[in-house]
Amino acid sequence: MRHGVILAGGGGTRLWPASRRARPKQLLRLLGGGETLLAATYRRALRVADRALVVTAAEQADAVAPELGASAEVLAEPVGRNTAAAIGLAAVHLAASDLDAVLAILPSDHHIADEDGFAAAAGRAFALAEERRAIVAIGARPTRPETGFGYLELGDEIGAGARAVRRFVEKPAADAAAAMVAGGHHMWNTGITFARADRLLADIARHLPATHAALMQIARDSGVAAELYPSMPSISIDHGVLEHVTDLVCVPGDFGWNDVGSWSALAEIAPPGPDGNVCVGQVIATGGASGNIAVADPGHLIAIIGVDDLVVVQAGDAVLVVPRSRAQEVREVVAALGRAALDRFL
Amino acid sequence: MRHGVILAGGGGTRLWPASRRARPKQLLRLLGGGETLLAATYRRALRVADRALVVTAAEQADAVAPELGASAEVLAEPVGRNTAAAIGLAAVHLAASDLDAVLAILPSDHHIADEDGFAAAAGRAFALAEERRAIVAIGARPTRPETGFGYLELGDEIGAGARAVRRFVEKPAADAAAAMVAGGHHMWNTGITFARADRLLADIARHLPATHAALMQIARDSGVAAELYPSMPSISIDHGVLEHVTDLVCVPGDFGWNDVGSWSALAEIAPPGPDGNVCVGQVIATGGASGNIAVADPGHLIAIIGVDDLVVVQAGDAVLVVPRSRAQEVREVVAALGRAALDRFL
Repeated sequence: MRHGVILAGGGGTRLWPASRRARPKQLLRLLGGGETLLAATYRRALRVADRALVVTAAEQADAVAPELGASAEVLAEPVGRNTAAAIGLAAVHLAASDLDAVLAILPSDHHIADEDGFAAAAGRAFALAEERRAIVAIGARPTRPETGFGYLELGDEIGAGARAVRRFVEKPAADAAAAMVAGGHHMWNTGITFARADRLLADIARHLPATHAALMQIARDSGVAAELYPSMPSISIDHGVLEHVTDLVCVPGDFGWNDVGSWSALAEIAPPGPDGNVCVGQVIATGGASGNIAVADPGHLIAIIGVDDLVVVQAGDAVLVVPRSRAQEVREVVAALGRAALDRFL
Repeated sequence: MRHGVILAGGGGTRLWPASRRARPKQLLRLLGGGETLLAATYRRALRVADRALVVTAAEQADAVAPELGASAEVLAEPVGRNTAAAIGLAAVHLAASDLDAVLAILPSDHHIADEDGFAAAAGRAFALAEERRAIVAIGARPTRPETGFGYLELGDEIGAGARAVRRFVEKPAADAAAAMVAGGHHMWNTGITFARADRLLADIARHLPATHAALMQIARDSGVAAELYPSMPSISIDHGVLEHVTDLVCVPGDFGWNDVGSWSALAEIAPPGPDGNVCVGQVIATGGASGNIAVADPGHLIAIIGVDDLVVVQAGDAVLVVPRSRAQEVREVVAALGRAALDRFL
């Protein structure tokens, strides 16, 4: 059976002040009044899979549940131990009742513009995972020399719409990233991954044996999860497993994938208005203000006068103002808030 | 007896979004947790006068009262009809019980840095009003070619620390304002004015006879105020009376007077921090942000990264971002809010 496995345990404050410890990115309504990124992921999962399972941290389970359907199954990790553990937990859980479980692993904090395109790529990837027992990574054509992503070096074609992966390049230096973007032989790894549960568990057993052993114990007795989880290595599925897989397959997916890694990315997924500003919520722009990204909570108002190319975000009790080109530096504010004992704003 | 007459009926949204219809400028705590501009004015009034009377609009009376002492006397105008009516109302009211009433007329939405200097100037002005029956305007040395103020052209010296006023120049053009600043013979009219009540009423009778007649009727029967007030001309004391007074006296007062006419004025009354930003409330500035004016409500946070010379204000449900040099353009936002049916933000 085809299962969506939605990874919803992330924290992250790259979209501070909207994203906070208590309201991680996947719970944001990035485009205003619509659904959260998580709810959209859940909806897309049920479009391509028979069932959907959400893996989250125990402390986030209450916040996650309202974004899902009533029949949603939620697996709560006692503590977050990165994606290898979360995916492994889902795999042992699903394999226990479905020997032929195939997983679509879906990060919950990405934006996808073209859902038909996503469904088509997912169909190909499920088939490859089922028929070839492959681990299939969905790739996205790189559009900028992003140093925060993993890149997949493409090899031979494997049937229609699929390529072998020659090499996995995690978080390259800027010059290497630029070369890969220019060369045209690499795809960004979106983190959307398809594989049979038994295939995944075999690779986890091989490359992360301690994790595998702990997962097997938890599969036999879920009561030991709280005790075993903290001792599992905190490692990503990319770094812990995928980088070591020699027969990885890539399905390039051209469906408007965006990880919304900073406020500047909002301009890629929300069109600017006639005045050239991207506005989410109630915004008044006068005095020739142009090229700005302005985001206000419902019921709030942002007025910008004569400023250009700024990010202005009002969320709850905090306001952020930063040039679009420097939106990544919100991390420094987050760090400063910790140092300044203002962590109630985190 | 010396009476402070505090004019607290103003609306005004030049400090939007902090100032709103329901919270005019005189009710702002501009420097954070301290007193409101009105409370500070009341305190200063009682320092120089025997009693203080507050004139406000009926709809603002409830908001005004908490800023005053328990013994404060409040006169509520049925509707606001500008300063000539408000001052006239105070004059007839005080003259009815004190034939020798001398008034210190004090706008309630100004900031005064040097209260000893203010008290010294007030002492001279009271004496001139009492001894010479003069109308005395407190002048402030102009520091920029402000076109929104009235200017007093100085004539001969009249005793120590007082000058005759040759001419009254209301809201000059920019080049005329620049010439007056450069010439050194003009003072800004602060609006702080001293006169005997009977002298004021005589001048109102002469220059605004309809206003005077209405005030006399109200003095005899306060019950007719609601009926008569709306028919009184809405005119300022400057335009309606002071411009026509040929024996006006100016006491130059060098006490850090500031009318806080826009957010950019905040930099004149609040010192910048070590990072070069003027911050009221909780502000985090990183990435070299400098020269900014940032104002946040208590319990809120503004984070500015790598931006220069901006005004960033969070007040209630609204945020304003504008270059310091264009802070006057907040009027256009206020106008746009009316047009866009967003007047709940006004």
